[in-house]
Amino acid sequence: MSNPAYPGINSKRLWQRHLDMAKLGATAGGGVHRLALTQLDIEAHKLLSEWASPHGFNVSLDPIGNMFIRREGSDPSLPPIASGSHTDTQPNGGRFDGITGVLTAFEAMETIHEAGIETRHPLETIVWNNEEGPRFLPSCMGSAAYAGAEPLKAMLASEDGDGITMGSCVDALKNALPHAGSRELGAPLSAFIEVHIEQGTELEASGNTIGVVTGMQGYRRFAVAVTGEDAHSGTTPRARRKDAFVAATDMARALREKLKDEEDVLRFTIGRFEVLPGGITVVPGRVNFTIDIRHPDADVLLELGDQVEPICKREAGPCEVAVNNLITQDPLEFPAGMKQRITAAAQRRGYSSQPIFCCAGHDARHISKLCPAGMIFIPCWKGISHNEAERAEPEDIAAASQIIADMLIDLANET
Amino acid sequence: MSNPAYPGINSKRLWQRHLDMAKLGATAGGGVHRLALTQLDIEAHKLLSEWASPHGFNVSLDPIGNMFIRREGSDPSLPPIASGSHTDTQPNGGRFDGITGVLTAFEAMETIHEAGIETRHPLETIVWNNEEGPRFLPSCMGSAAYAGAEPLKAMLASEDGDGITMGSCVDALKNALPHAGSRELGAPLSAFIEVHIEQGTELEASGNTIGVVTGMQGYRRFAVAVTGEDAHSGTTPRARRKDAFVAATDMARALREKLKDEEDVLRFTIGRFEVLPGGITVVPGRVNFTIDIRHPDADVLLELGDQVEPICKREAGPCEVAVNNLITQDPLEFPAGMKQRITAAAQRRGYSSQPIFCCAGHDARHISKLCPAGMIFIPCWKGISHNEAERAEPEDIAAASQIIADMLIDLANET
Repeated sequence: MSNPAYPGINSKRLWQRHLDMAKLGATAGGGVHRLALTQLDIEAHKLLSEWASPHGFNVSLDPIGNMFIRREGSDPSLPPIASGSHTDTQPNGGRFDGITGVLTAFEAMETIHEAGIETRHPLETIVWNNEEGPRFLPSCMGSAAYAGAEPLKAMLASEDGDGITMGSCVDALKNALPHAGSRELGAPLSAFIEVHIEQGTELEASGNTIGVVTGMQGYRRFAVAVTGEDAHSGTTPRARRKDAFVAATDMARALREKLKDEEDVLRFTIGRFEVLPGGITVVPGRVNFTIDIRHPDADVLLELGDQVEPICKREAGPCEVAVNNLITQDPLEFPAGMKQRITAAAQRRGYSSQPIFCCAGHDARHISKLCPAGMIFIPCWKGISHNEAERAEPEDIAAASQIIADMLIDLANET
Repeated sequence: MSNPAYPGINSKRLWQRHLDMAKLGATAGGGVHRLALTQLDIEAHKLLSEWASPHGFNVSLDPIGNMFIRREGSDPSLPPIASGSHTDTQPNGGRFDGITGVLTAFEAMETIHEAGIETRHPLETIVWNNEEGPRFLPSCMGSAAYAGAEPLKAMLASEDGDGITMGSCVDALKNALPHAGSRELGAPLSAFIEVHIEQGTELEASGNTIGVVTGMQGYRRFAVAVTGEDAHSGTTPRARRKDAFVAATDMARALREKLKDEEDVLRFTIGRFEVLPGGITVVPGRVNFTIDIRHPDADVLLELGDQVEPICKREAGPCEVAVNNLITQDPLEFPAGMKQRITAAAQRRGYSSQPIFCCAGHDARHISKLCPAGMIFIPCWKGISHNEAERAEPEDIAAASQIIADMLIDLANET
């Protein structure tokens, strides 16, 4: 296809920008450690803003720190057609999770701009703030606040482990981008498409390039606080201990047994587990841990999640336990129209594609409440993600960006 | 008894000094958080040195940071009769563990000095460095290095969680005490007595004031490193996970089952348990944890400790595990002579006493390799220790200090 109405993206530039971004927080193990709105993440925002500047794209920030890079359309009354993802990573995460969705969107927008193509709708590349969540809870904070799923004030008050608030980090981001305009939370979008690495192995197994995401599994997350009593490990007999570690591991094991399905569809994870005070010779008096449960079926998810608190109470032994349901997100399906557009765009370019169900959480989940949304997956080496070894291929990334470019042109003129 | 040869200690001063020391690292919960050779612990050393100064007691430091406060005797050829313990605490620890042994020793020495009693042997109050171990491993570092049980170079190279070495902390201590002299590691001692809170409930139950410590249980400590693979909690099916948390909790549970005795004499504790990377949505790829096993019988201890590695390997699942036996200390008995002296001294003063077995680790363990050593326990409220709620009574502390004073006089003239 060499239709001048659909210009080809610059795959070399797109890959180089992945390499440039990977320098911000590069780890010895070849990954990226760039937690939300740390100085490194703010640098990533600045770099995007520098790339936007020569084209005259406007940059704006909303109150929760989402960033919008905008190319104006011919009809100022129309809301933008948007694409994007996030710049933050997990601790010692990879070079593609999040940033690929931002860079493919930006490359698509830039390609359209350089080809001199006018669109009726404006186009936007969006960086949703704090998608990952290890520094500030909850994850997907920026998109959730934008879509009204989380209250702004509470999100800005969220603190990291050092007591730094998200509010102060958003202020730092604004200071770092003094020319950025202001955007309201929830300002209308006409459509949103997010590119992301699959973080699974279906595309790798099938050999297909493009995953047309059909829907997303739901999830429930819990914070569990176990309180026993600190005691001396040499002098305190077992019968007199209130060992929070023992109680918490009994809870973890009972939960694991209950949340185990033959089909291996349910995802049950304890990812954070903090034992205090943490001395070798101290019986630990406190444990704080998190639970992440995911399932494609809303009823199953509800029922299993409701087991968490009774199981923890049953296994608490001499300790006390408090269970807090941090968040519940129902499974969702993306609109048929968006899936058809992605499938058709892949077909026109000759990229092999397949429907694929999404097991991870993404910003598109929240944005799908505001406008028609869709997601495109590309292959992810061995399914490894949230890991320094995370890998995606330049040609797959280029394919996704090309589809975004083609779709933006269509969406921005048709609708 | 109002024998001028055995002057009475100043119990009010002794209690006030406990209150003064408790200010250095005071916690909101009424405890003390003063980890080894932090600025706060260095302040504690300085405060002792200030109290020593008006009496002309010499202060010296050895290469591992033990502090010696000395009152000279009449025969310069004789090694000192010493008493002491440590100034460092557990994280959010109490106001008595360690410091009571230092302050009772100092009060005894000061009482003898103020009474103008000349002794043949010099007297010393000793502060052993880093007894507790939560900041730097191993615990009882100062006394172990002094007694030759641990190599100086490796101890000085020990790093805390921020990569700060013990060597640099010892330098900071020396800088804070510019007038302190130098003491060689292992310089001879004639005798050593350590006062400590019981950290158990035997004295409280019997109503006795003085515990004549008969011996100490042995212990083995292990560090276990479990390595799996970080993975995305939403996309990675159970069958594909190498979840280090799951493996480590299986190990912990299997160890707990194996190391459970009907008699509740064995002490098995997992006090430190670090899960990495620690994100809610990340299957953890690494867990590092510690094991502390204690038992009065050397053979039982050896046999049970030898089970740790095979059990961990058996329960590792898809993960790898490395087990490191950090330390093995056999049980010990204190010499009959020292026990008799303590019992007799208590009797002379009319304090009720009883033999008691020690379940904790103390500096006297290592020093007993160098000279006749003994330990005196005093009651500890509810046996609670390594905890902000730790409590001991002023009159019990005074009784112990009085016995030390009486014993120092006898030991420093008889032997």
